[in-house]
Amino acid sequence: MREETGFTPVGDFGTGELAPQVGVGILGYAFMGKAHSNAYRKIPYIMDPPPAVPRLIAMCGRKEDAVARAARRYGYQGYYTDWHKLLENDDIQLVDNCTPPFMHHDPCVAAAQAGKHVLCEKPLARTAQEAKAMWEAAQKSGVKHMTGFNYRFVPAVRQIREMVEAGALGKMYHWRAVYLQEGGLPRLCRPMKWSFRKGLAGGGAVNDLGAHIIDLAHYLVGDIKTVAASTKTFVEERALPGAQGGTDKVDVDDAFVASVEFECGALGTLEATRCGLGRRNYNCFEINGEKASVRFNLERFNEFEVYSVEHGPRETTGWTNVLVTESYHPWISNWWPRGHVIGWEHTFVHEIAHLLDCIVNDRDVGPYGATFEDGYRASVVCDAVMLSAMTKSQVDIKY
Amino acid sequence: MREETGFTPVGDFGTGELAPQVGVGILGYAFMGKAHSNAYRKIPYIMDPPPAVPRLIAMCGRKEDAVARAARRYGYQGYYTDWHKLLENDDIQLVDNCTPPFMHHDPCVAAAQAGKHVLCEKPLARTAQEAKAMWEAAQKSGVKHMTGFNYRFVPAVRQIREMVEAGALGKMYHWRAVYLQEGGLPRLCRPMKWSFRKGLAGGGAVNDLGAHIIDLAHYLVGDIKTVAASTKTFVEERALPGAQGGTDKVDVDDAFVASVEFECGALGTLEATRCGLGRRNYNCFEINGEKASVRFNLERFNEFEVYSVEHGPRETTGWTNVLVTESYHPWISNWWPRGHVIGWEHTFVHEIAHLLDCIVNDRDVGPYGATFEDGYRASVVCDAVMLSAMTKSQVDIKY
Amino acid sequence: MREETGFTPVGDFGTGELAPQVGVGILGYAFMGKAHSNAYRKIPYIMDPPPAVPRLIAMCGRKEDAVARAARRYGYQGYYTDWHKLLENDDIQLVDNCTPPFMHHDPCVAAAQAGKHVLCEKPLARTAQEAKAMWEAAQKSGVKHMTGFNYRFVPAVRQIREMVEAGALGKMYHWRAVYLQEGGLPRLCRPMKWSFRKGLAGGGAVNDLGAHIIDLAHYLVGDIKTVAASTKTFVEERALPGAQGGTDKVDVDDAFVASVEFECGALGTLEATRCGLGRRNYNCFEINGEKASVRFNLERFNEFEVYSVEHGPRETTGWTNVLVTESYHPWISNWWPRGHVIGWEHTFVHEIAHLLDCIVNDRDVGPYGATFEDGYRASVVCDAVMLSAMTKSQVDIKY
Amino acid sequence: MREETGFTPVGDFGTGELAPQVGVGILGYAFMGKAHSNAYRKIPYIMDPPPAVPRLIAMCGRKEDAVARAARRYGYQGYYTDWHKLLENDDIQLVDNCTPPFMHHDPCVAAAQAGKHVLCEKPLARTAQEAKAMWEAAQKSGVKHMTGFNYRFVPAVRQIREMVEAGALGKMYHWRAVYLQEGGLPRLCRPMKWSFRKGLAGGGAVNDLGAHIIDLAHYLVGDIKTVAASTKTFVEERALPGAQGGTDKVDVDDAFVASVEFECGALGTLEATRCGLGRRNYNCFEINGEKASVRFNLERFNEFEVYSVEHGPRETTGWTNVLVTESYHPWISNWWPRGHVIGWEHTFVHEIAHLLDCIVNDRDVGPYGATFEDGYRASVVCDAVMLSAMTKSQVDIKY
Repeated sequence: MREETGFTPVGDFGTGELAPQVGVGILGYAFMGKAHSNAYRKIPYIMDPPPAVPRLIAMCGRKEDAVARAARRYGYQGYYTDWHKLLENDDIQLVDNCTPPFMHHDPCVAAAQAGKHVLCEKPLARTAQEAKAMWEAAQKSGVKHMTGFNYRFVPAVRQIREMVEAGALGKMYHWRAVYLQEGGLPRLCRPMKWSFRKGLAGGGAVNDLGAHIIDLAHYLVGDIKTVAASTKTFVEERALPGAQGGTDKVDVDDAFVASVEFECGALGTLEATRCGLGRRNYNCFEINGEKASVRFNLERFNEFEVYSVEHGPRETTGWTNVLVTESYHPWISNWWPRGHVIGWEHTFVHEIAHLLDCIVNDRDVGPYGATFEDGYRASVVCDAVMLSAMTKSQVDIKY
Repeated sequence: MREETGFTPVGDFGTGELAPQVGVGILGYAFMGKAHSNAYRKIPYIMDPPPAVPRLIAMCGRKEDAVARAARRYGYQGYYTDWHKLLENDDIQLVDNCTPPFMHHDPCVAAAQAGKHVLCEKPLARTAQEAKAMWEAAQKSGVKHMTGFNYRFVPAVRQIREMVEAGALGKMYHWRAVYLQEGGLPRLCRPMKWSFRKGLAGGGAVNDLGAHIIDLAHYLVGDIKTVAASTKTFVEERALPGAQGGTDKVDVDDAFVASVEFECGALGTLEATRCGLGRRNYNCFEINGEKASVRFNLERFNEFEVYSVEHGPRETTGWTNVLVTESYHPWISNWWPRGHVIGWEHTFVHEIAHLLDCIVNDRDVGPYGATFEDGYRASVVCDAVMLSAMTKSQVDIKY
Repeated sequence: MREETGFTPVGDFGTGELAPQVGVGILGYAFMGKAHSNAYRKIPYIMDPPPAVPRLIAMCGRKEDAVARAARRYGYQGYYTDWHKLLENDDIQLVDNCTPPFMHHDPCVAAAQAGKHVLCEKPLARTAQEAKAMWEAAQKSGVKHMTGFNYRFVPAVRQIREMVEAGALGKMYHWRAVYLQEGGLPRLCRPMKWSFRKGLAGGGAVNDLGAHIIDLAHYLVGDIKTVAASTKTFVEERALPGAQGGTDKVDVDDAFVASVEFECGALGTLEATRCGLGRRNYNCFEINGEKASVRFNLERFNEFEVYSVEHGPRETTGWTNVLVTESYHPWISNWWPRGHVIGWEHTFVHEIAHLLDCIVNDRDVGPYGATFEDGYRASVVCDAVMLSAMTKSQVDIKY
Repeated sequence: MREETGFTPVGDFGTGELAPQVGVGILGYAFMGKAHSNAYRKIPYIMDPPPAVPRLIAMCGRKEDAVARAARRYGYQGYYTDWHKLLENDDIQLVDNCTPPFMHHDPCVAAAQAGKHVLCEKPLARTAQEAKAMWEAAQKSGVKHMTGFNYRFVPAVRQIREMVEAGALGKMYHWRAVYLQEGGLPRLCRPMKWSFRKGLAGGGAVNDLGAHIIDLAHYLVGDIKTVAASTKTFVEERALPGAQGGTDKVDVDDAFVASVEFECGALGTLEATRCGLGRRNYNCFEINGEKASVRFNLERFNEFEVYSVEHGPRETTGWTNVLVTESYHPWISNWWPRGHVIGWEHTFVHEIAHLLDCIVNDRDVGPYGATFEDGYRASVVCDAVMLSAMTKSQVDIKY
């Protein structure tokens, strides 16, 4: 045929010749389900070669119409409406839990017990106790386990981690991190949902946004020793969704502020809010060390700033804005030439590629990926923030 | 089966049920081939619903090993090593030309004559004359034709275009645009390649980078009336690649500067360089109008700045940094919640989705997409820049 | 004579014809002495008309050579080496105390008792108790009293205050302020001096830098209700100055972090450090309100940022960088045309002109100037920060 | 007396003991007159020791009431209404011409012929021819002569000049400079004044703003070889001031754009406008060299940005924002501790102190100060810009 038409057919890259396959079952199909599915779809052709080729076996969700539609849209072979059934599917080696916190513990524990690797969105659980049980179950079963702290997989953040490891910052004196959003502001009138309910979410800004910056503090500075915090619920009642009307009481925080001390001697601040007018997704941290300081802001995803006493003559010392798009920056060689910026979604490509690599090559998820232990440790600090706010006392962290 | 396992299979979203299919044949598999292929792969699930579902029929390239590997990687059904053959494939409705300029004219004209829609990377051709022939061929055949001026599909740029159309800027007085890169600097010792040869590229920074900002000038301000320019080749010889050694003469510019007047009365500057140390991909423009001014910088892809006399009280008038990630900003509703930034690659998703929409719904590619006419018009100005530099005189633009 | 030479002599502007005169005696001639003296010298010709014309009567300092030299340099009529004597000079109506904290209480109380108006540098005293005595003495004597919180007199800060008063921010949810310097870093090896001694300074970063941002919190947000803090001394010993060698123990903090709650319901963070590598004089705060947010950074003295839900259409909503150099911005009409920026020293011109106006026109120093009461209130919070750090508990503020 | 009162009088620093005195006569008392007078008043106490102590002998202006008032306000001994008479005053050694361009030639030439040193505001003259005559007169008389290109005396600019001299930038490839203001916009309805009249000003934005950036180009890059430009008068008629009404024709440009080639081989752009909405005083330039690039923006007076291939490891290469407030930065040791920013007015302190030093110590005004030759050279380029715009041809620069 080729002689006539000139056309040579090629096989499907998904067959496992280029790279081993890993069957994926995913719980949830909303924001995180979309973000993870996008990553599974991109890994095979963006990474060359990919560590593994994900086979999108099934989505799972409770609303059949919606999950069927999403499964088709994102290219899964099919769907489930009961996660217990999904766990029985032998084609699935990796269970990816993209549901809200109240749906994290049971499926993750059962998946691990069923011998499946588990990726769970953050926060790992509603409480440290729940998170610990998940970590223990995963450890016991010997599967790979990962908490979805995707900001470890921002190239700039990984670059900073490498600088910390290499001693470029020297002794660290200060950590300050905020994660500011504005979706909870009264003027937006967001109705009641799971994220405003303690029983479903475990906490408010503390668990949702705070967990991210607490994990980054662990990742970049180390163990936290004490925390002293205040929390606040600015909007105490929210309208119930739907036609029936009425309101219900919010029993989680809209915001928290915390002063912390690290084991290494550094001081820190942590703050998160859903009422930070003008801040879309402002996850911003700064470290001041003896030899260098760094600053990162998620809204300027492709950049970070560094001040180093070792760079250049004193007349031109200052904060250097680094565009993290060079081939020698973390993960960038998978993407585009310098100056062609990448986006937020690509953190999941890096994160999941890392997990797939750990699965097929039996590598450790940590320290660059967040394990369930890291998820647990973040929950310990989240709980301490809430305890400190309640007791009006500084709380010692016991991981 | 479902009763037992709980699994319900779903069909492939590529079958054309959700949206019509468009068969794609692509020439080239390097930088642009990757960027376009990524777009074809993302459109079906990122857009909901997509305007059309691309069927990736074939890639074409001269090096068989490489094109075979790329076709498989990006999920094409097969490949060709001869573009004439590709044009004979009836499954292909859209020919996407991602080759260097010297390979633009012949395949594009032939594709149009074969009744296939054509997308051609920028610059459309080596000269305005060549570009005009392509435009005429495409027009005559009645196919959809698009020049790959993808920066029209940056959400910020489209937002600015909408502001211009709505009269938000008022009469325009100034346009200033630079496109600065640094790949041509002596210290990088880049070897000779097609982009340093006039016979293959048509021009240097003028055609490669300049064409982009000339198109943006046309898109946002309008027709150019006169241009006065200087060009410069900073590195006059480059090493030949490969083992044999030797150097060859560069016969294109490394940089140009130009002063322009627009038909609307505005003054402008245009500048592009391959020797702008520190500037990775700095495509930056500013417009000063009577009522508002705007500024955009490609390295801060998700932002633009606006100054308006109509926004707020005078005490707080200033340049507003707009994070273009709201659902009501162009294309953003396809992506993520506010503050979750997108990347450079996504311009191609928007661009190609627009073209697919034009194809399946018989809509006009312009004025939001760049047609071959727009590609030709940019070439006219590129040629005028080079003519002005040579003649040391201001050149009147005749489109 | 004029007929011949064309020259017409004019009188001295210092004679009190243009404006009343106020005799000034100043204690201290170092950093603050220079800054205040500069202000006294500029007021008569920069302000048109000035509220009053300062007569520079005398400087006072303990080192005779140095004070004599400084008095001459800055244009004082003479000097004292004993502040008690200075207070006996009837030409002096305003005593300006530019000495370190341990020298604040006695001269200020005595000056007030002598019926002289008093300007005292910040922090007002080493402790709230000491500050309270100063405030009471000043109140009792009926003189004008001002604490040198000069950052209230940054045009941007005053503009923000006016926005707060006008309700432009709406209900306030968040305050976050840092004051970061780097002079205490180990690598700089700064020797022991009064600012590292609790007995002389009252505190470290808490009193020196913290007092400024606590005053700004009071000025812009209101009363603080609770504070939970940690402090740290990173450099525990410092070399004694001079040839004899040896080191001494630092007994003040190098840094503190604090979480606060305001009476108005807002949450806040406060942080100051002498070990913030890369931060020269980074006094930066942000307020998030229901209707607008603002941000100011002292290193960008002539600017502030504002985000308002009420400015412009939603497509162009964002953070507006305001260049505070318009004639309608606070104090700017005294200076230069728009865009011609002013500097840090000019805060003292505004501050002292305000005090002179209060003196000659019997106006209130507050709420725009900081009184001794404001100085005391800042000290209450400074003390609470240190108490909270010591007791590891949240402290309720009792002004 | 001292024993009793403790008071020791000190002499006036203006007596010439600390430093030689230089008698000053100034023409003009408006914007520039205020800025220069402020500098004369600050030099004696800000600089320690000052190079000289200015004696403010006389102001000169045509409106007697106004000049009398200004002379008194700024502390001159008296005033003249006829500059010829001022030149007869033997106490005056330095004539400072702060008048509009049409008043530059005659008084400056006469002053030089009278053996007085001359400082003249920019542009030096209305035309290069006029400027050349001034330069020749000054040269012939042997006096010190300076053109008021005060931006050479911005610490950041001087720092950049020192970097250029030290070879830190390497070969220079690009210069791009804009000077954007907005005072000429139609919506502001500024009435007719001298600056809109060719006979009085010599040119519009070209002479007023353009001269500044042309001088900076000379100062930092070197001789210009060719220029190709367009000019534009956006507002062709302006209302006559005063009650009588009516309009008059503007015969100068509101804006120009120019492409230039330097003798050193660099390409450049120059642009200035009075219609750059949102740009208050945006004098901004960038140089791209082989080893380093720099960028400065007058609205961020205390900063500049530098990118150097020699600073730090490649992972953290980027644009460094330098806060130019260190004691080792140019002139800063006269001012305040690091991070305490200075303002626009202080350029005149540096400039005039330099001139005084040249006068009393017989030093050369150039190359750090701009001489009349530099003023002439800037005028040559201004004239060439206008000629190129008129002839629609590139113009070769003949200094």
